[in-house]
Amino acid sequence: MNIAILVAGGRGARMGRDKLFLEVAGRPLVVHTWGRFDGAKAIEEIVVVVRAGMEKEFLALAKKFQFRKKFQIVVGGAVRQDSVWNGLEAAPATAEIAVIHDAARPCVGEELIEATVRSAEETGAAVAAHPVTDTIKESADGRLIQKTLDRTRLWAVETPQTFRLDVIRRAISLARERKMVFTDDTAACELIGQPVRLVSSIAPNPKVTVPGDLPFVEVLLRNHVKA
Amino acid sequence: MNIAILVAGGRGARMGRDKLFLEVAGRPLVVHTWGRFDGAKAIEEIVVVVRAGMEKEFLALAKKFQFRKKFQIVVGGAVRQDSVWNGLEAAPATAEIAVIHDAARPCVGEELIEATVRSAEETGAAVAAHPVTDTIKESADGRLIQKTLDRTRLWAVETPQTFRLDVIRRAISLARERKMVFTDDTAACELIGQPVRLVSSIAPNPKVTVPGDLPFVEVLLRNHVKA
Repeated sequence: MNIAILVAGGRGARMGRDKLFLEVAGRPLVVHTWGRFDGAKAIEEIVVVVRAGMEKEFLALAKKFQFRKKFQIVVGGAVRQDSVWNGLEAAPATAEIAVIHDAARPCVGEELIEATVRSAEETGAAVAAHPVTDTIKESADGRLIQKTLDRTRLWAVETPQTFRLDVIRRAISLARERKMVFTDDTAACELIGQPVRLVSSIAPNPKVTVPGDLPFVEVLLRNHVKA
Repeated sequence: MNIAILVAGGRGARMGRDKLFLEVAGRPLVVHTWGRFDGAKAIEEIVVVVRAGMEKEFLALAKKFQFRKKFQIVVGGAVRQDSVWNGLEAAPATAEIAVIHDAARPCVGEELIEATVRSAEETGAAVAAHPVTDTIKESADGRLIQKTLDRTRLWAVETPQTFRLDVIRRAISLARERKMVFTDDTAACELIGQPVRLVSSIAPNPKVTVPGDLPFVEVLLRNHVKA
């Protein structure tokens, strides 16, 4: 079976308050995200990783918005990698695939979720990503440009980042053992030599990081509702 | 003196029609961009590089929206580099600094324009850029990830790209001589060993490329008008 792990444990310091509860397109941000997984056929159970003390608020949301799928609320750690680890620890014994997703990416589509699951079944690890469209320069000091990178080789990764559970457990275990902290889950896979498949993400799937991101997300969510 | 070269000669094929004339926040897109330079203290004259056959439409805009600064309409070439070259050829003999800007970036701020002018005066070449916030992976085939790049060294470049005229003329001349085509003007500077200064762009300064970009730009432009 496939589970989703929604990483909702971040402090959202740049937003001033907990960004996941901000209203966007008529509902709290995280309700959109959770709803996408609640409605996705590929997913059987959902683990929501939250900040300590926030458990009741998430439970209340689940009740209010009547999510249908089985879920667990789990308390996260100090950094993202610890939160993902806690989510993995809560996975049922029968789970084979974990779809790890930023709760602050509410626009994720069902097709993208499924595509990462299929690729993770084949390869062991897969990540949603889009080709970089900006021209990217490298600079050691942030003042002078050293070189122009070959944009055709560059991909910006998003979530879902989807894994066979044995793979991601092994990768994060080793990172923890070596006191390494990764901000993206596929980077830990590089540590164990696990190939990671890119899954092309075509529809916009932005992460809400600062308040200025909300108007764009609002438009995307409203268009989705209409469609 | 400092001139602006607005590159408005693109075909905008991805937009289906000429995107620069799409209404956004109550005016054609390009009117916002032109207006920003018309109002910027650092700029004395404006060269608008347009597609052949579009000259009259741009002249009509200038009249309708009563731009105050001296301007020229110049026909562009087959690729961006040729359009920039034609703009440079039209520069008055007294011009020292050229601020080259995508007409499809209507949110550019006056401070950013000025900051690139100051840096170009010092260094010879400067470009607006923002630190990359996405995690960037390198892949040779677009299927498997080869490695994670060090994001702290990566900058996404925008426009303005601002130069001493002698510098940019020399750079593009050499590129043309060698039959090299660059999609960004600072890349030609690398060819002549000209250092390029990064100028941190903090306010959003997006380029309208596809219709889906318009709602976000609309919000930015309306907020600016209110402020």
